[in-house]
Amino acid sequence: MHFTSEQRFEDGVLERRFTLGDIPGILWTPASAPAPLILVGHPGGLDRMYPRLVGRARHAAAGGYASATIELPGGGDRPRLPAVEQARADLHRALAAGEQVSDDVVDRLVLPLVDRAVPEWRTTLDALLALPGISGPVGFSGGVVAIAVRLAAVDPRIAAAVLFAGSFVPRATVEEARRITIPLQVLLQWDDEGNDRQMALDLFDAFGSAEKTLHANMGGHTGVPQFEGDAAACFFTRHLR
Amino acid sequence: MHFTSEQRFEDGVLERRFTLGDIPGILWTPASAPAPLILVGHPGGLDRMYPRLVGRARHAAAGGYASATIELPGGGDRPRLPAVEQARADLHRALAAGEQVSDDVVDRLVLPLVDRAVPEWRTTLDALLALPGISGPVGFSGGVVAIAVRLAAVDPRIAAAVLFAGSFVPRATVEEARRITIPLQVLLQWDDEGNDRQMALDLFDAFGSAEKTLHANMGGHTGVPQFEGDAAACFFTRHLR
Repeated sequence: MHFTSEQRFEDGVLERRFTLGDIPGILWTPASAPAPLILVGHPGGLDRMYPRLVGRARHAAAGGYASATIELPGGGDRPRLPAVEQARADLHRALAAGEQVSDDVVDRLVLPLVDRAVPEWRTTLDALLALPGISGPVGFSGGVVAIAVRLAAVDPRIAAAVLFAGSFVPRATVEEARRITIPLQVLLQWDDEGNDRQMALDLFDAFGSAEKTLHANMGGHTGVPQFEGDAAACFFTRHLR
Repeated sequence: MHFTSEQRFEDGVLERRFTLGDIPGILWTPASAPAPLILVGHPGGLDRMYPRLVGRARHAAAGGYASATIELPGGGDRPRLPAVEQARADLHRALAAGEQVSDDVVDRLVLPLVDRAVPEWRTTLDALLALPGISGPVGFSGGVVAIAVRLAAVDPRIAAAVLFAGSFVPRATVEEARRITIPLQVLLQWDDEGNDRQMALDLFDAFGSAEKTLHANMGGHTGVPQFEGDAAACFFTRHLR
């Protein structure tokens, strides 16, 4: 892990950009240490997502949490993944034509990202937990839900997660969800344009966790209400403190 | 409104039992005034429900809220409602036989309670808001969802509500829900024995409110997690303060 820049905000939060191999990432740490760590997911494109990510990270830092994120495979300036881009083009063509999105397209779009991203998150987690002032337990928040599900299924360091059931979900992810037993808070946008509400409810139903709460709110894909940030903080406080 | 007894708890909360005509009720007020008011619903049987009700009221008082409840028509020591008791017997017979509960049974069980309870809640609200130290805006929390929906539909003093989508819901209530526009937080127990999950989701979908959040948790009818008390407090703080 190689730090490439740093800045400190007026609230005392330290933002450090890093690279891990060829993967760019950002770490935000509060003034207080040791800080439990929240891994912050996103749909790809760190620069484009930065305003929202830094907002979430500073909100979390106010509660004493460190946050970290890395660029998605194929996202931002990382090498393109032609097969995934083809699948995304197929998806957009189906949506524009008002057609049902096939399971095949969803699998070709999401599963290669899961297969690549999960080992990257695990390597990142190794490096982050070796830093002074960063401690477990570790939470995961948001991003591509299939990545979060796989990561939670394979890495016992993930102790709790806030998931966003607003991505296209491969059938394999619904099956994988049955293996998850950590506490979950699952966000669903009730009127999400491109997504199937019933699929999201089926995913929520599939999770094996004894404690799982669905928070469904009105509005489209990007309309998650501000107060869900507070609800996520309450959830992580219950499980990471 | 006639106060019949009072006691003060060690946390400073004052509990006063009252009658309003022949309706018994309880008012809990925090040490601080003026306090916004939360009307606390329940399924009937004040004495049986008392331990849970006083818990909710003292939790709310810690946040600066007054709470009040009244006995349900036909509940506790109030005069029996033979037609409602017949409907309840029909309901239990259907459940025991593993039969589908008919719309007719649900209507006969719930609608007479709604027709009687809502005017009683409104008269109670008139009396409560005339007391020193109690102020609007007013929230409603829990209880028979059809009563809460009708009350919110007809009484503009109800500014926000936490509803429990865990009662049998008449079709008329789903229609009435379309008229509701106040902010809502709707609790659903995912594995509620006697209730239809899809009906609860349909009810949530029907509400006309721009801000409505569904909180679905694991477990049966009486298994609402403790942390939903904190979530309700956050919700009321956003809307009654």
